[in-house]
Amino acid sequence: MNRRMVLYMIGQIIKLEAAVLVLPALVALIYREQCLWAILTTAAVALAVGFALTLISRPRSQVVYAREGFVIVALSWLALSAVGALPFFLSGEIPSYVDAFFETVSGFTTTGASILKNVEAMSHGLLFWRSFTHWIGGMGVLVLIMAIVPSVSGRNMHILRAEMPGPVVGKLMPRIRDTAKILYIIYLVMTAVEIVLLLLGGMPLFDSVVHAFGTAGTGGFGIKADSIAGYSPYLQWVIGIFMLLFGVNFNLYYLILIRHAKEAFKSRELWLYVAIVVGATAAISLNIAPLYDGFEETVRTALFQVSSITTTTGYATADFDLWPGLSKGILLVLMFIGGCAGSTAGGLKVSRVQLLLSTVKRDLRRLLHPRSVGVIKMEGKRLDEGAISGASAYFILYIALFAVGCLLLCFEPFGMVTNFSAMTACFNNVGPGFGLVGPAASYAVYSPLSKIILSLAMLFGRLEIYPLLFVLIPSTWTKK
Amino acid sequence: MNRRMVLYMIGQIIKLEAAVLVLPALVALIYREQCLWAILTTAAVALAVGFALTLISRPRSQVVYAREGFVIVALSWLALSAVGALPFFLSGEIPSYVDAFFETVSGFTTTGASILKNVEAMSHGLLFWRSFTHWIGGMGVLVLIMAIVPSVSGRNMHILRAEMPGPVVGKLMPRIRDTAKILYIIYLVMTAVEIVLLLLGGMPLFDSVVHAFGTAGTGGFGIKADSIAGYSPYLQWVIGIFMLLFGVNFNLYYLILIRHAKEAFKSRELWLYVAIVVGATAAISLNIAPLYDGFEETVRTALFQVSSITTTTGYATADFDLWPGLSKGILLVLMFIGGCAGSTAGGLKVSRVQLLLSTVKRDLRRLLHPRSVGVIKMEGKRLDEGAISGASAYFILYIALFAVGCLLLCFEPFGMVTNFSAMTACFNNVGPGFGLVGPAASYAVYSPLSKIILSLAMLFGRLEIYPLLFVLIPSTWTKK
Repeated sequence: MNRRMVLYMIGQIIKLEAAVLVLPALVALIYREQCLWAILTTAAVALAVGFALTLISRPRSQVVYAREGFVIVALSWLALSAVGALPFFLSGEIPSYVDAFFETVSGFTTTGASILKNVEAMSHGLLFWRSFTHWIGGMGVLVLIMAIVPSVSGRNMHILRAEMPGPVVGKLMPRIRDTAKILYIIYLVMTAVEIVLLLLGGMPLFDSVVHAFGTAGTGGFGIKADSIAGYSPYLQWVIGIFMLLFGVNFNLYYLILIRHAKEAFKSRELWLYVAIVVGATAAISLNIAPLYDGFEETVRTALFQVSSITTTTGYATADFDLWPGLSKGILLVLMFIGGCAGSTAGGLKVSRVQLLLSTVKRDLRRLLHPRSVGVIKMEGKRLDEGAISGASAYFILYIALFAVGCLLLCFEPFGMVTNFSAMTACFNNVGPGFGLVGPAASYAVYSPLSKIILSLAMLFGRLEIYPLLFVLIPSTWTKK
Repeated sequence: MNRRMVLYMIGQIIKLEAAVLVLPALVALIYREQCLWAILTTAAVALAVGFALTLISRPRSQVVYAREGFVIVALSWLALSAVGALPFFLSGEIPSYVDAFFETVSGFTTTGASILKNVEAMSHGLLFWRSFTHWIGGMGVLVLIMAIVPSVSGRNMHILRAEMPGPVVGKLMPRIRDTAKILYIIYLVMTAVEIVLLLLGGMPLFDSVVHAFGTAGTGGFGIKADSIAGYSPYLQWVIGIFMLLFGVNFNLYYLILIRHAKEAFKSRELWLYVAIVVGATAAISLNIAPLYDGFEETVRTALFQVSSITTTTGYATADFDLWPGLSKGILLVLMFIGGCAGSTAGGLKVSRVQLLLSTVKRDLRRLLHPRSVGVIKMEGKRLDEGAISGASAYFILYIALFAVGCLLLCFEPFGMVTNFSAMTACFNNVGPGFGLVGPAASYAVYSPLSKIILSLAMLFGRLEIYPLLFVLIPSTWTKK
């Protein structure tokens, strides 16, 4: 274990966090809010700690093996959340540190589960910070640091792989740093376009920016008690469609950018993703039609919720906890499937679901013809057996950890629906669940211990299990 | 597709059913009950249909490939249930044929889910038949026919494999027929021992026999409204322990029988099974202690329910739907794990869970050391990659079908807990679930369509998915 390199990277991450805290500080300054000093204090502490860490740990070797990659990613995200919670706590706007930690983890992991009972009472500075964590966490904080800090962009494919979601991670460009930069440029431009479209629809600037952050990161933190329900149909369409766009694999946008659109539209994952969204929207529209006025409102409401849940964003224009059983069942399944690999969405990812179904198909063929050769392809390329069995192993682990998580919540007296859906919504980085954690409610009811368990579930989900799991396995820490 | 052989085997199965209907007919005769004519009519019809089928289809070739094996098993179980439902329906004791079919499928698949609102009003003849279906279905009806009908015991390993539960099916003896015989003899002797022990505890003869059938098949049909709660602690201990014994892989009993007990006690599956039962009983005992009087009653109640649920029997001495969340959560997890492979229990099976966890462990090792060789052993023997990926594929299919099943139940207005646990309890062949299908309730609330869906779920679970799935895939029926 290259411990110096681990500490060095954590130091870099905390320094980066100090830098990005300038933005919410500016917002607090503009609105002349008291939270300014809490944000500045946090930035100063982060800067000091970050510099201290990078100074004492300057690594002799920049080599990062898979093991270090996982540990760096897991500990960076924990450090980021621990520091990021300070402004909420120091300002007193979230009096409990555990609550502030939960809220910040929920932000960075783009979950959007909130413990706030009255979000409209928060200051603009902290609301901005809260939504900005979505934007940073969506594309990946280590991807960001590789894009901007030259000294850490050397041989760090293992870090990229550990942080990027999906069963197979490829590089767009020969150099990791260029890949990371391209991803962030696409991300930035799309976010800017959404802000402009929201402004054109008459949404105030502050609202437009935070909602664009929440959409881009597929996070879902809102600034109104009724989430997006109070905004005009036009604004709901814009957010609904942009959620879907941010749930698409960013590699496809890159392909379009370099004029390979034909190749992008050949993606089997893209079409399955579209089919899932269209199918779910149609089924739910039929199911909820009696509750809404006319075709447009029904389809808009169905599509918005489908888009929000399948991209694991969590915005709502309706209290879907009050919908009929079938619609709730479909939404629950979508929570597990999630968006595309290489997007900012959570869940299992569409391409992994595809791969798992291909594995089943191959097995069925083998049961009848034991000597048949079973090649599995993904996006036209033959997968090696390691990637195939890796996806199965990931799925087994995913279900096993989910079951353990649900058992740990059983100590709470809220009944199966609330506990089960809370774990589903946190582990898949969705945000709202059903029952007491439905879209009209908050996670405030849970005990501090359960909030920590749910925070870990969000991190396990966002980082796709392995990084945090390796940190928890003792043998990771012994010398090899 | 060797269709003649398929029809021939179904004919044999129906003839066998006609023969075993003699036993409930005798019971009805002893108690001088009206249901006698319904049983005899069914037996006569079954005999006629069975002979007709075997006569018209006498196969030119006895060769059974994997494809035919699956189809034979699936259609045999459907035919068996369709015919077995007739006595309930013709006697008028279950006025709806769909209800009678549900009850019979529940019997043969050893689920024990019931639509009866007042079981104590049923005649002895039909209560006997209902419990006897558990006993027949437990060890497998095609295993039985291979044991007793010489003409079908040729090259039928594919049938044995399709009907026997677990990730890997082995033959105990070189000849399949001898294997099937040995299994049934062990089964018969253990059932007889349980009957004697129940009689010694003062349970009436009729009650002893039907409860031994329900225990042996890990089915769970009782004859009292309160299941086993009204019987003495001694009787509860006997049934509780025998459920556990019938949840053990029968190969181990065979090893003990041929004086290889040492080898039997080396089984890793056995010890994990014991560990699960002891661990779950301890945790639930601590959790429910405040609800019961003293140590013995607490442990007895906890062990009975754990034993009943993990072996997927479904008997109850307490309404566990009223227990605290943690205990209910543990029971829910046990429903999915189930008993040992090669036993009469349902669920995923302990050895498959072991194999899945080994797959995860190997994957974690490979993530750190991509070139590591990953050998997975089961009971000391190295498994080939086909068996390993087969277990993963089975698990993926299992979860996917479970999700589809839950979605199909979403049309029912009973809420998530009831629908989810009904599907869990039927798919894993447990019987009682939570909420409206808890141990003190029945499945009578469901619509006929949902009862058929749940019946199919029970068959999918008991036959471990593949046989029924292949029947539903059109390409199975086209010529190869």
